[in-house]
Amino acid sequence: MTPPSDPGSLPPLRVAVLGCGTVGGEVVRLLLAQADDFTARIGRPLELVGIAVRRAGKERPGIDPALFTTDAQTLVSRTDIDLVIEVIGGIEPARTLILTALASGASVVTANKALLAEDGATLYDAAERAGADLYYEAAVAGAIPIVRPLRESLVGDEVTAVIGILNGTTNFILDKMDTEGAGFAEALADAQELGYAEADPTADVEGFDAAAKAAILSSLAFHSRVGIGDVHREGITEVTAADIASAREMGCVVKLLAICQLSDGGRPDGTGPGRTVSVRVHPAMIPRSHPLAGVGGAYNAVFVESRFAGRLMFYGPGAGGSPTASAVLGDLVTVARNRVRGASGPGESSYAQRVVTGIGDVVTRYHLSLAVADVAGVLATIAHCFAEHGVSIQTVRQQGREGDAQLVIVTHRATDAALSATVDALRRLDVVSEVTSVMRVEGE
Amino acid sequence: MTPPSDPGSLPPLRVAVLGCGTVGGEVVRLLLAQADDFTARIGRPLELVGIAVRRAGKERPGIDPALFTTDAQTLVSRTDIDLVIEVIGGIEPARTLILTALASGASVVTANKALLAEDGATLYDAAERAGADLYYEAAVAGAIPIVRPLRESLVGDEVTAVIGILNGTTNFILDKMDTEGAGFAEALADAQELGYAEADPTADVEGFDAAAKAAILSSLAFHSRVGIGDVHREGITEVTAADIASAREMGCVVKLLAICQLSDGGRPDGTGPGRTVSVRVHPAMIPRSHPLAGVGGAYNAVFVESRFAGRLMFYGPGAGGSPTASAVLGDLVTVARNRVRGASGPGESSYAQRVVTGIGDVVTRYHLSLAVADVAGVLATIAHCFAEHGVSIQTVRQQGREGDAQLVIVTHRATDAALSATVDALRRLDVVSEVTSVMRVEGE
Repeated sequence: MTPPSDPGSLPPLRVAVLGCGTVGGEVVRLLLAQADDFTARIGRPLELVGIAVRRAGKERPGIDPALFTTDAQTLVSRTDIDLVIEVIGGIEPARTLILTALASGASVVTANKALLAEDGATLYDAAERAGADLYYEAAVAGAIPIVRPLRESLVGDEVTAVIGILNGTTNFILDKMDTEGAGFAEALADAQELGYAEADPTADVEGFDAAAKAAILSSLAFHSRVGIGDVHREGITEVTAADIASAREMGCVVKLLAICQLSDGGRPDGTGPGRTVSVRVHPAMIPRSHPLAGVGGAYNAVFVESRFAGRLMFYGPGAGGSPTASAVLGDLVTVARNRVRGASGPGESSYAQRVVTGIGDVVTRYHLSLAVADVAGVLATIAHCFAEHGVSIQTVRQQGREGDAQLVIVTHRATDAALSATVDALRRLDVVSEVTSVMRVEGE
Repeated sequence: MTPPSDPGSLPPLRVAVLGCGTVGGEVVRLLLAQADDFTARIGRPLELVGIAVRRAGKERPGIDPALFTTDAQTLVSRTDIDLVIEVIGGIEPARTLILTALASGASVVTANKALLAEDGATLYDAAERAGADLYYEAAVAGAIPIVRPLRESLVGDEVTAVIGILNGTTNFILDKMDTEGAGFAEALADAQELGYAEADPTADVEGFDAAAKAAILSSLAFHSRVGIGDVHREGITEVTAADIASAREMGCVVKLLAICQLSDGGRPDGTGPGRTVSVRVHPAMIPRSHPLAGVGGAYNAVFVESRFAGRLMFYGPGAGGSPTASAVLGDLVTVARNRVRGASGPGESSYAQRVVTGIGDVVTRYHLSLAVADVAGVLATIAHCFAEHGVSIQTVRQQGREGDAQLVIVTHRATDAALSATVDALRRLDVVSEVTSVMRVEGE
């Protein structure tokens, strides 16, 4: 082995950071605190040359004030910068800044799930053209390594499904509803008070955040371009305490799941032509014995099924300043190492170009609650309605009330289209006063 | 974006496979079955040019017989080979073959934990000198991506502990003892019958396999060289049905754990100079609520604690032909991509050169069973013995028998040295007829 020269004496790689909020502030702090370790790990020192912020003048202890600028565009246009970290979030100006950074010769590390899910293709193409790296481990599931395992570890395998709890806020809320019997509004208020949910919780509770992450994971898993527009999305705002109680009676728990699946190709081993992809985010009941059922609080977990590796699970904190910064800095060191070696990591892999199908074709099981008239023959009428639409009933449980009854039905596997048609028909029946809830049952 | 040329028409990368047993056979089969996908993912086709086997002439359906050779040394000496997969296992001839392959210009993918733990430094240095890649995801925890997450995803963080169930055979045996109340010999016989344990189970049940994996993970996690000789190792052959029952009474389960820890550096945040590493493999009791407690059968799991990412867990099949082949092929595609780009991945990172301390300094809790005389004052005598050695007792449970009694003691945290001295002193006490068992309690 050649005797190692002191890497600290070599010319530094120059780093710019865009954004200095919760994540950005932590990235800068850890970058400075671990400078010597990073130098040893990369083989050259890193030099922080600028931090773009929206408002100058805010006190940021331990950071040289001269590093701050409100002119992000000029910062990323500098051609002497090797590495740009984007932790602003949102579509613009993040997109323009990343494209400028790549065009100026820098490699980019980003945590921006919304942008990657909205317009990843533009960014991947720009990185490819520039021969630069675009890394984004922090965009999905916080500190949990999932982008790299899908992009590299499983690249010799065929991933058939990725099922994740990808949003800590909704998991916290559903967990609270399950353990404390709270309603959605009450659990949301608690989450907001504890800082787990934003004042405007829409992106989390309506599933937009999880849908963006699902689009990114599907693209990686299936070597195809999947955007947020391809993801069927339902939030958790309509999940009731009654749904949670009903799930409990079935030995299930309700989770907001992101489900990315590769369809069967028709051959006995599952391969074959015409395999398609479906991607959806919605609340679902899963058995308490399922590995994802035990993921509590604001944790995230990703369950991966592949043809040869089998079933893998990845678990950890899905958000927060330090965990997200850890993921960003792991990418930063990797990208810096690539730069020292004059190389770049794997780019986008979308050669398979799988068609993304709509929710109608998705096959799963369903849990329905119906308020029905408590008269003879009701069950026969309802069973006939299911049968007419090709949906087979697995179990029926009837709970009598004064005047009417509550019917809880769990179906066998059926397409979403068949189930939707069944629900429409049920609503038109005289004996059905209300379809109280419909929820998918997964993980069996 | 430049229009992609057809990668299948480009000159192939040449691949040689050393070994065609369970894993090697599966590697070859999947390599051939997924040839088109691999070409698209790598950007150039792979061409299998030779398979080294011990005995020629064995029927291997679907593989061109002309590919087989019994002369591995000549195969790896060819300078036209880009990628060598080593799945022979063991120290020699694997080491010589890998060194020859690297010297001849090939990158190497290996699943050889024993060799890496015994003499990894020689291999890493040879790869560094040759500017070639040496990848080994399959060497630890089968298909679970853990080498890459430690080497890349967490490289911007500081890993403080890695705790793993790294051996499927022993986990299967302990699981069977727990769920069926079986003794060790009976559970081992079952495991052998089902193919989970070898005819000579020494490497598994004595902890050598897990110790090799622990050495590899420690080296990666702590940026230091840790060899199998640095690992304190105890197997599971002395775990009794009584230990398992006693664990159950405490709400615990017994697992063979590999525990790799970075010591505290003395500063309030845990950093500071003189931080050392300890690495040990032994059976331990862990609470049933711990994420590792639920890892059943032949599965593996790795729990990682880091300063910024927090607690992560990785879970999946730890062995078997297909899962191991998946990990090998993930590395193969990654290494092939590096080669197409004229680059190499991260090499060994051992700059931290942390000192590995012996088991005596390790601090944990202990569960002891003692057979004692059932006479007045026994407990006082025994408690005095613990106190003399600075070991604090947390709980004592006494079960009377005819003539003598069984005492179950759980201690507070103490060093292994203090506990060992206590046990020696207990054995010398007249009132102690036997120290029936001593087991560490972890994960609290």
